[in-house]
Amino acid sequence: MAAWAQLVYLKDIQVKISSEFSIIKKYLSGIGTSYLKSNGVDLSVGDDCAILAANSKLLISTDTSVVDVHFLKSMPSNAIAYRSVAVALSDIAAMGGQPIAFNLSLVMPNFNLDWMKGFRKGLQKISREYKCPLIGGDLVKGPLQISVTVIGKPQKKTLLRSSAKAGDILCLSDKLGSGYIAFKEFKKRGTLNKITKPYLYPVPQINYGLAISNIASSAIDISDGILQDLSHIISSSGVGCNINLDKVPVVDRKFKKKCLEFGDDYQILYTVAPKKLKALRASLKSIGKECHTIGVMEGKKLKITNKIDSIKNWDHFK
Amino acid sequence: MAAWAQLVYLKDIQVKISSEFSIIKKYLSGIGTSYLKSNGVDLSVGDDCAILAANSKLLISTDTSVVDVHFLKSMPSNAIAYRSVAVALSDIAAMGGQPIAFNLSLVMPNFNLDWMKGFRKGLQKISREYKCPLIGGDLVKGPLQISVTVIGKPQKKTLLRSSAKAGDILCLSDKLGSGYIAFKEFKKRGTLNKITKPYLYPVPQINYGLAISNIASSAIDISDGILQDLSHIISSSGVGCNINLDKVPVVDRKFKKKCLEFGDDYQILYTVAPKKLKALRASLKSIGKECHTIGVMEGKKLKITNKIDSIKNWDHFK
Repeated sequence: MAAWAQLVYLKDIQVKISSEFSIIKKYLSGIGTSYLKSNGVDLSVGDDCAILAANSKLLISTDTSVVDVHFLKSMPSNAIAYRSVAVALSDIAAMGGQPIAFNLSLVMPNFNLDWMKGFRKGLQKISREYKCPLIGGDLVKGPLQISVTVIGKPQKKTLLRSSAKAGDILCLSDKLGSGYIAFKEFKKRGTLNKITKPYLYPVPQINYGLAISNIASSAIDISDGILQDLSHIISSSGVGCNINLDKVPVVDRKFKKKCLEFGDDYQILYTVAPKKLKALRASLKSIGKECHTIGVMEGKKLKITNKIDSIKNWDHFK
Repeated sequence: MAAWAQLVYLKDIQVKISSEFSIIKKYLSGIGTSYLKSNGVDLSVGDDCAILAANSKLLISTDTSVVDVHFLKSMPSNAIAYRSVAVALSDIAAMGGQPIAFNLSLVMPNFNLDWMKGFRKGLQKISREYKCPLIGGDLVKGPLQISVTVIGKPQKKTLLRSSAKAGDILCLSDKLGSGYIAFKEFKKRGTLNKITKPYLYPVPQINYGLAISNIASSAIDISDGILQDLSHIISSSGVGCNINLDKVPVVDRKFKKKCLEFGDDYQILYTVAPKKLKALRASLKSIGKECHTIGVMEGKKLKITNKIDSIKNWDHFK
């Protein structure tokens, strides 16, 4: 049993319903149902599996968020839910895709009514913002963590990590460091405000990904720090890069090193052929965005211009 | 970052690879790759998302297994991996589908070489047995748990929980209780043998599901105890059931109550129109299986003939 039971409380049927399924029915069902039909979901929450119509290719990615690793226990449950889905959607953005649905597995140590209500609201918020319904998952007792599997529809061209070419320009969607600054501020103040928002409610760059998908040559989302994520493009594409750290925009220059290495910004790092730069800028202008050129793909190695000493990246097992 | 990085250790590229990605590369990549093409996987491990060709409808389901809730910490890691994927595949079986791929999110507290090697072997074993490649996921530090999202291809007809009709015969794929007896024995002896095997390496009833998919009217897999799972068919279909517990086959009559309520058997509970019973038996005979008729769908309520006192079912939050 994994997908959620669509339970009906009909007293005359006298089916004994467990509390586990009441929680699912009350707080984890009916989220984003108005998008089911248009997104090609034939069957949602309520059976062993969901069914997707799948008239096109599909993107799929799983992201697990663990308490005190990916989010703070002190965060409002609304933000915990939102953030867990947002970071998963970011992978669809990095491929230039459009999200169509998600599965969510919630592991939690106990049932708290207010926490659960807030969690549902967070799911509703992100589901509405990205027109992405919740189509299944499971609910389990254990240490708090949320595993989200997102399904997306690719555009004509899918942005891979492996297709950067020598001579391509390295670009970034926006400034780095808002995740770090927001995290630091939230640890200090513990409230939602303009500064803490990017950590509590990160923005997956879906529209940005769609705008560049048919123009850029490769892409990845920045979650582990720019050098780590750049290294994936380099190793997958088999071409080196000369990145100029002075050209990487950050939200606070006093904390430049932290802004670069902390990750959690969910901006898109991508490459584009020089002759396509004009078309790229035009496409981005139509959604009110720009591109920051920060390096060139060349050689066989990662070369860092204006290097910052001892810059590190996120690693769970080091 | 979610899908796994296809990292290349080329010294001349001098990319600094983190230990997290080395673990993924060494132990969680290259599993079931020979099935990628035939199963319509266009892009597997190594980018932000995997890409599925999706020429047909797709089934999708997520199942999370938590240490000391769904499996014992003392189990060999080989069995932990196998079991976590098997219980997810069981949901594909219950819809009468054919598995085509899975995503796996592994949360573990630390890195232990032997444990990791065993875990990989368990993934390879189940991947081979069900021709189902691992196409992505993530690796995170935290309390041990495994979240598996399976993708499957439905047959012409998909087996729903909601399509049982009054007059249909209630059937069961095989005896119940092997999960309970195996669990009890493993807790006592801690070794793999013929009795403990069904808990360590449960069998998702894929072939059974395929054999009944175009004949049965509804189905569910039994993971939470037969009455709990039957209640889902009843409430989803809006028709009652008269189940005769004396007719439910169990592996050990001394522990009949436990065999019925423990769950973890991953047998299929399903309904079939009486006039199709002959065709059903013939289809099952061709795969060396049979069907056990244990009740009739009728009325509006769950009616239990030969009831056992105080029978319970699994519930995380009660």
